[in-house]
Amino acid sequence: MIVCPGEDLAPWIRSLKGLDPALAIRVWPDVADVTEIEFALVWNHPPGELRRYPNLKCIASLGAGVDRILGDSELPRGVPVTKVVDAALMRAMTEYVALAVLNHYRDMDRYRRDQERQQWAPRFPRPREAMAIGIMGLGQLGADSAAKLRDMGFAVGGWSRTPKQIDGVESFHGSEQLTRFLSRTDVLICLLPLTPQTRGILNRGTFQGLRRGSYVINVARGGHLVEEDLVEALDTGQLSGACLDVFREEPLPARHPFWVHPRILVTPHVSSLTDPDAVAPQILENYRRVMAGDPPLYQVDVERGY
Amino acid sequence: MIVCPGEDLAPWIRSLKGLDPALAIRVWPDVADVTEIEFALVWNHPPGELRRYPNLKCIASLGAGVDRILGDSELPRGVPVTKVVDAALMRAMTEYVALAVLNHYRDMDRYRRDQERQQWAPRFPRPREAMAIGIMGLGQLGADSAAKLRDMGFAVGGWSRTPKQIDGVESFHGSEQLTRFLSRTDVLICLLPLTPQTRGILNRGTFQGLRRGSYVINVARGGHLVEEDLVEALDTGQLSGACLDVFREEPLPARHPFWVHPRILVTPHVSSLTDPDAVAPQILENYRRVMAGDPPLYQVDVERGY
Repeated sequence: MIVCPGEDLAPWIRSLKGLDPALAIRVWPDVADVTEIEFALVWNHPPGELRRYPNLKCIASLGAGVDRILGDSELPRGVPVTKVVDAALMRAMTEYVALAVLNHYRDMDRYRRDQERQQWAPRFPRPREAMAIGIMGLGQLGADSAAKLRDMGFAVGGWSRTPKQIDGVESFHGSEQLTRFLSRTDVLICLLPLTPQTRGILNRGTFQGLRRGSYVINVARGGHLVEEDLVEALDTGQLSGACLDVFREEPLPARHPFWVHPRILVTPHVSSLTDPDAVAPQILENYRRVMAGDPPLYQVDVERGY
Repeated sequence: MIVCPGEDLAPWIRSLKGLDPALAIRVWPDVADVTEIEFALVWNHPPGELRRYPNLKCIASLGAGVDRILGDSELPRGVPVTKVVDAALMRAMTEYVALAVLNHYRDMDRYRRDQERQQWAPRFPRPREAMAIGIMGLGQLGADSAAKLRDMGFAVGGWSRTPKQIDGVESFHGSEQLTRFLSRTDVLICLLPLTPQTRGILNRGTFQGLRRGSYVINVARGGHLVEEDLVEALDTGQLSGACLDVFREEPLPARHPFWVHPRILVTPHVSSLTDPDAVAPQILENYRRVMAGDPPLYQVDVERGY
């Protein structure tokens, strides 16, 4: 069963059927017999819905995030939840992050504003190593972005719940090291999973802990950001700008202040789109595994939240 | 003697004196005795000026380009002309080129326009290898950009006057292969030296040879581009956009159509600014060499033009 309200599912069905033409696929809500469903491919499902299927053996997220699934208080217990782990998805995410960092480092938004005012004002960029990057979240995506930005010559630090080691990256962990991490950061990048502990972590206190004039990039989840606090920090000059790809409500509603804020760059959740052709093989592999009674790949820890 | 009208020379004098406090420096036009001058550090000098110094042993460009020097029809014959070769300058140039390519590949200008209209419209990017990059000029800067873009997963071709070989880059050369080179290109990047042969090479015929909807990046010299032809190609849709860092006249004049063109991104010649601290050592090394009667490093071929 595919439960993805509002998504165009044709590419997914084409990719899955292309790999296994005999695969029986039901598209929610068009499911006559709930006992028939053993595997659910899920994105933005209606809370409570998944407990209606007594023979469900696996809940597979269509993307890397599982916060919407785990946020369902009526999720059937004991059914494994899996996420997508995909090299192309990681590459796209790291590319978006590198682009957002370079756009800021090379003053491109300032030059765009100069162009609007027909002003020719070259500026020498500061030394690369003087713009400290701080990455929140050092899972697969965060670690890959950290390594890439380190290779580009930036001073990179990372912060995660538990200690992590990445060559050439200054690592911090736990709430007790958050202040030190923030105080050495000029560009804050959020790549955390969204859990009850990380919800709203991009807030006034966090922004005040950064160096003055810092830049914020959020490519994780809209729920990480306290939107009012961002606008306040931009208006006081504590932050110089932000690049946001995710929002509390998506699509970003009409008349939301982010649309027109001169220091906020809005992109419509495109930092890393899941490619059905790239991901269908691992979905199918997990389908086969659970049907054979084996544990699925890329299972998330439901208690930990990612 | 430093001949750089309009430039702030304090950082240059500080860097040179920092390396050799005994160095005798004259800043043009404040030169009492023309026979005293043996070495000239030059940027945008007035044509004809350099032949006034009978003991001149070397003309050193302050940057990687020497077109303004060689364009002086009264340049003293037989005096070697040198350019700057600097790893930091190359890194900055390649970084700018990568940024411009990613900005286009990831549709960032389209998302900026969407933001102005408060429109949420995610698009799946085409496969990376389906956006063919074509680099004109495979000298040090062009070769470095080609290798970087190849490593980023793009299909990269290069075109140069004489045959060049770069691993994983499809190479073309000479006027007879220009058409083939253009016909496989979606993003055209100009990194050529400006010579009588390359002046105006970015013209209507070149744009028409590209795939429809191509994107143009000029980081070489303003003289490469026939500005009217670019506007025409954008208006007919043959080109989808352009990122320009260099212009026929700099600063770009007030009321120039590029300032307000919705498909042109203007930056004020910042793709790679020469850092005095990084470059002073090689200037000084060449000064010592020519004073000792040795040939200078990084000498350009005056006939060839680069």
